[in-house]
Amino acid sequence: MSGTTYVYNLRDLKFILKEWLDMGKLLSLPPYAEYYDADDIDFIVDNTFKVCRDKVAVVNDDADKIGVKFEDGKVVSPESFRDAFKAVNEAGLGAGNADREVEAHLPYTIVQSNYEMLCAASLAFTGYWGLTTGAISVIQNYASEELKEKFLPNMCAGEWGGTMNLTESGAGSDVGANVTKAFPTDEPGIYKIKGNKIFITGGDHDLCSNFIHLVLARIEGALPGTAGLSLFIVPKIWVDDDGGLGEPNDVVTTGIEEKMGLHGQPTCSLSYGENDGCRGYLIGAPPDENGKASGIRQMFLMMNEERLMIGIQGLAVTGAAYLHSLAYAKERVQGRKFTDPKGERVRIIEHEDIRRMLMMQKSCSEAIRALVLKSCYYYDLSHDSEDPEEKAFAEGMFQISNPLCKAYSTDMAWLLISDAIQVFGGYGFTAEYPVEQLARDCKVLSIWEGTNYIQAQDLVGRKFTMQKGKVLTDWMEDIGGFIKSHKDKEGYGREFEVLSGAFGDMNYILEEVSAYGEGDRKEMTPLFATRILHAAAMLYCGRLIIDQALLAGEKLIELGEDHFDAAYYKGKIASARFYILNIVPQVGAIRRVIGLGDASAIDIAEESFA
Amino acid sequence: MSGTTYVYNLRDLKFILKEWLDMGKLLSLPPYAEYYDADDIDFIVDNTFKVCRDKVAVVNDDADKIGVKFEDGKVVSPESFRDAFKAVNEAGLGAGNADREVEAHLPYTIVQSNYEMLCAASLAFTGYWGLTTGAISVIQNYASEELKEKFLPNMCAGEWGGTMNLTESGAGSDVGANVTKAFPTDEPGIYKIKGNKIFITGGDHDLCSNFIHLVLARIEGALPGTAGLSLFIVPKIWVDDDGGLGEPNDVVTTGIEEKMGLHGQPTCSLSYGENDGCRGYLIGAPPDENGKASGIRQMFLMMNEERLMIGIQGLAVTGAAYLHSLAYAKERVQGRKFTDPKGERVRIIEHEDIRRMLMMQKSCSEAIRALVLKSCYYYDLSHDSEDPEEKAFAEGMFQISNPLCKAYSTDMAWLLISDAIQVFGGYGFTAEYPVEQLARDCKVLSIWEGTNYIQAQDLVGRKFTMQKGKVLTDWMEDIGGFIKSHKDKEGYGREFEVLSGAFGDMNYILEEVSAYGEGDRKEMTPLFATRILHAAAMLYCGRLIIDQALLAGEKLIELGEDHFDAAYYKGKIASARFYILNIVPQVGAIRRVIGLGDASAIDIAEESFA
Repeated sequence: MSGTTYVYNLRDLKFILKEWLDMGKLLSLPPYAEYYDADDIDFIVDNTFKVCRDKVAVVNDDADKIGVKFEDGKVVSPESFRDAFKAVNEAGLGAGNADREVEAHLPYTIVQSNYEMLCAASLAFTGYWGLTTGAISVIQNYASEELKEKFLPNMCAGEWGGTMNLTESGAGSDVGANVTKAFPTDEPGIYKIKGNKIFITGGDHDLCSNFIHLVLARIEGALPGTAGLSLFIVPKIWVDDDGGLGEPNDVVTTGIEEKMGLHGQPTCSLSYGENDGCRGYLIGAPPDENGKASGIRQMFLMMNEERLMIGIQGLAVTGAAYLHSLAYAKERVQGRKFTDPKGERVRIIEHEDIRRMLMMQKSCSEAIRALVLKSCYYYDLSHDSEDPEEKAFAEGMFQISNPLCKAYSTDMAWLLISDAIQVFGGYGFTAEYPVEQLARDCKVLSIWEGTNYIQAQDLVGRKFTMQKGKVLTDWMEDIGGFIKSHKDKEGYGREFEVLSGAFGDMNYILEEVSAYGEGDRKEMTPLFATRILHAAAMLYCGRLIIDQALLAGEKLIELGEDHFDAAYYKGKIASARFYILNIVPQVGAIRRVIGLGDASAIDIAEESFA
Repeated sequence: MSGTTYVYNLRDLKFILKEWLDMGKLLSLPPYAEYYDADDIDFIVDNTFKVCRDKVAVVNDDADKIGVKFEDGKVVSPESFRDAFKAVNEAGLGAGNADREVEAHLPYTIVQSNYEMLCAASLAFTGYWGLTTGAISVIQNYASEELKEKFLPNMCAGEWGGTMNLTESGAGSDVGANVTKAFPTDEPGIYKIKGNKIFITGGDHDLCSNFIHLVLARIEGALPGTAGLSLFIVPKIWVDDDGGLGEPNDVVTTGIEEKMGLHGQPTCSLSYGENDGCRGYLIGAPPDENGKASGIRQMFLMMNEERLMIGIQGLAVTGAAYLHSLAYAKERVQGRKFTDPKGERVRIIEHEDIRRMLMMQKSCSEAIRALVLKSCYYYDLSHDSEDPEEKAFAEGMFQISNPLCKAYSTDMAWLLISDAIQVFGGYGFTAEYPVEQLARDCKVLSIWEGTNYIQAQDLVGRKFTMQKGKVLTDWMEDIGGFIKSHKDKEGYGREFEVLSGAFGDMNYILEEVSAYGEGDRKEMTPLFATRILHAAAMLYCGRLIIDQALLAGEKLIELGEDHFDAAYYKGKIASARFYILNIVPQVGAIRRVIGLGDASAIDIAEESFA
């Protein structure tokens, strides 16, 4: 077993796409009906699985052990990446999927299912087109037809990379502190750009012949803060009117980061206009007469999609770590059973604590897969549904789920991959086995695309109050209504009791939150936001996974215990029980802590910290 | 700020050694009275601090980035290690501390305080003598005078390294599965050794001229399992009667592990007797007429000490990560205050969620420092007290605390260092800042010297039932009695209410555990053991840290608010409040989960896992 061994739970994905979510309904909607139906799902995901197994997973060791190098001002990727990159593009799994206007595009739910498979194969490698998708979307949505024609075809084909340039050394979470500047030129719509950006994923490498940077910069005279930022298309190499590559555009890669993980992914520092020769196309209109610009709105349109993708990244590495540790636990012989200390030595999967760690990983990764793919499904409905009410409901559900996907998945990745390492024992700490790499690779996920605290703030501060609280009410009713309709289901008494308790805890938490807002304890909201997000995620994941378990129970009855698929359905029921009876009670602990309302972290004087 | 910047909370250590623990009493006991009194503590720990800062921390980047190499069969350490190793030995901080029979030796509490400082400076580097201390103790306790004279002086001086050889590729946690063999020779007490050992920390390197391996092996005819294992002293180079180095002893280093962290620490594979030329000295008597040998008992005498040391390692890296993230939070400017969104940009220490993460790290690392040093103190009393009752009580408290120290400290290290990385944002993921290294370095701590599950099993299976439960009763009475005597303390009502609730939860858990043992649910013990250990650790840490807070409160009254030390004492009170009101409620969640008694992890069929 090495980092190049591809492991992916295709059965769980197919359960979601073919049994749990109503993909038949989604695929019957106008954008898809002509091209796809639910019977195509097998073909699509099986094909992706093969590409991931045969072409992508095989580069994952190189990604980590060779990594990307910065030599003579150039970013050099591992040799094996060429073949893999070609395969991904040829299979239609690359950046082209971001073009939602092209005919026969896939629904987001399927695109992101493919993306989970790709991330599970090599998270570092997906950075070579992951941000191109975001850049394509922004250009597609906001740029002129001329610019679309100039840039999109080569970006969608994977010939040119795309990037998102927000971060500067003094402006991370605080985007408004950007100091990159833009100056009008004689040519309308074209500006000179000057500034330095850091942490640009895929900002330069040798798999693409050009890079189309989307750069946030402030046009002279625009407002300070985020309101004054405009967004520019800044090609690394100027593109001639005939579409060919012209002069270099004074964009210099000044270095790449040495990182804990994702060694194969270039994290670039880029310098724009060091020699005053950098030009970019303004997207949309210049700042209005008050100096208000539209760059941040353009950039943030894509943010929800990007954040969902990070949730999927966390899920992918967590799922891979689980399956690696499961395979190891089934083979490794060590010790005797606790209940039979004189018996034969057994495989470690027979030990109770190993099973606890496996179930922890299994149940949480399945719960998170349910969460993120359900969110994708809502996202699709919010775009494609022909029923305005359904559309609006789906939009709300997506909005509230989105920060849960990003933050809960990535916070849990760190914990769950630790369990995977623990299953491997000492070997888990060595580079000979794949799990330590997954732990290193995952650590940035809780940070990028908005730290997990920013997600918590988004949830509690924006999503809970959206449409005067209607979105939150819908979400709580979805959970409460579900519990109410199923709580008497035979065999699930304890599970619904716990879930119902957690629902009550969440109601209590929401009352507290609204009291903070009204009272003089406004600072309690940010103090507890992260924990509130976790409580919300556990409650909602509990609701989703028991929904899956009820369906699995029906399938079991339908197919009978002897069916080859019975093991899967029983496993799903076990996951739901484990998740609800072992994880969800933490919602009660969070309620308790919020009820205690300790503010010592706020009250403590700075000099008392050390 | 880099990995070579030394950060250590000397104030908290001095609070423990000079104010909280009665070191005056300990140092007045016979082994120490003649040499030390409490006034020496400052000199000792200040001196260690300087050595750590000036000589040890400076090699920590080399430990990670250069690391140890295996070239032409030799283990090559970074060049800078030579100077550091010399400094540690000259300062009396090396392996010599393990010799508890030498005059003027320090109590264990102070030795381990020094050890925390050293581990905080460079955890990888401490592996160059950490296992030598265990080997010295075993030889000191069990070997003949002749062998002691032959080996101990050079080991104590740091000239020769010592190692512990338990693990084989098929025998990790399952020590009894050892297949290394020993064959009698014509010379009494000398055996031929044949076998392969792996994961031998400090098993070979270029800072010592010889290695004295303690090797578990089975003499022909001895029992299978651990009962048949004997322990041998196997020098890498044979030591002549005059003490000089003689012939090589057919011990070959076959490789070192590539690891997630601790790159500077050699983790060796050793081959003994590949050419039938390896000899070792049997420690103690050969197996008795039933084939029962005494190796495992000899080896395990040291295990409690080693496990406490791992707890200290976890604490050390956690504490370092906290202080690095604190320093960063005090400098880094980013964003505006939640309660003043139009105000000036602030340093991130002014953000509530950053403060939450800092307090999480501060309160937990202080609680764990209280736990491990109190355990050391009990360990000293259990050896040195002249009052038999106190001695017996201290022994019991040490026994029960020991698995808590090892497992809770190291499980928390992973979580808390993650918070430190999060405080750094994107920079935390880069090798430019020191925290990602600490996360990588710490991950083995939950595995080696007995995985944390083995600690949980030790706690629940052995320590809880020791002396027919008297040890457990003493421990619970220590906590219950403390709560009872202080619960009406003004200003701590909520804290004692929560602690009292957790105490009740623990009682409930203990009743459940004893019901498992009597009933037909024996497998519930290993299923819940890890969570029971966490509950026990949180309850006990809560009891210890509020004890510290009460003392800090008295000091505050004594010194007044204007005293320069007031900030420290207030910080201690804040730590206790935060720990009890934010962490300890998790004990209730564990009680709930145990009450629900879900056995899905056991009941699930193996084929349902994937």
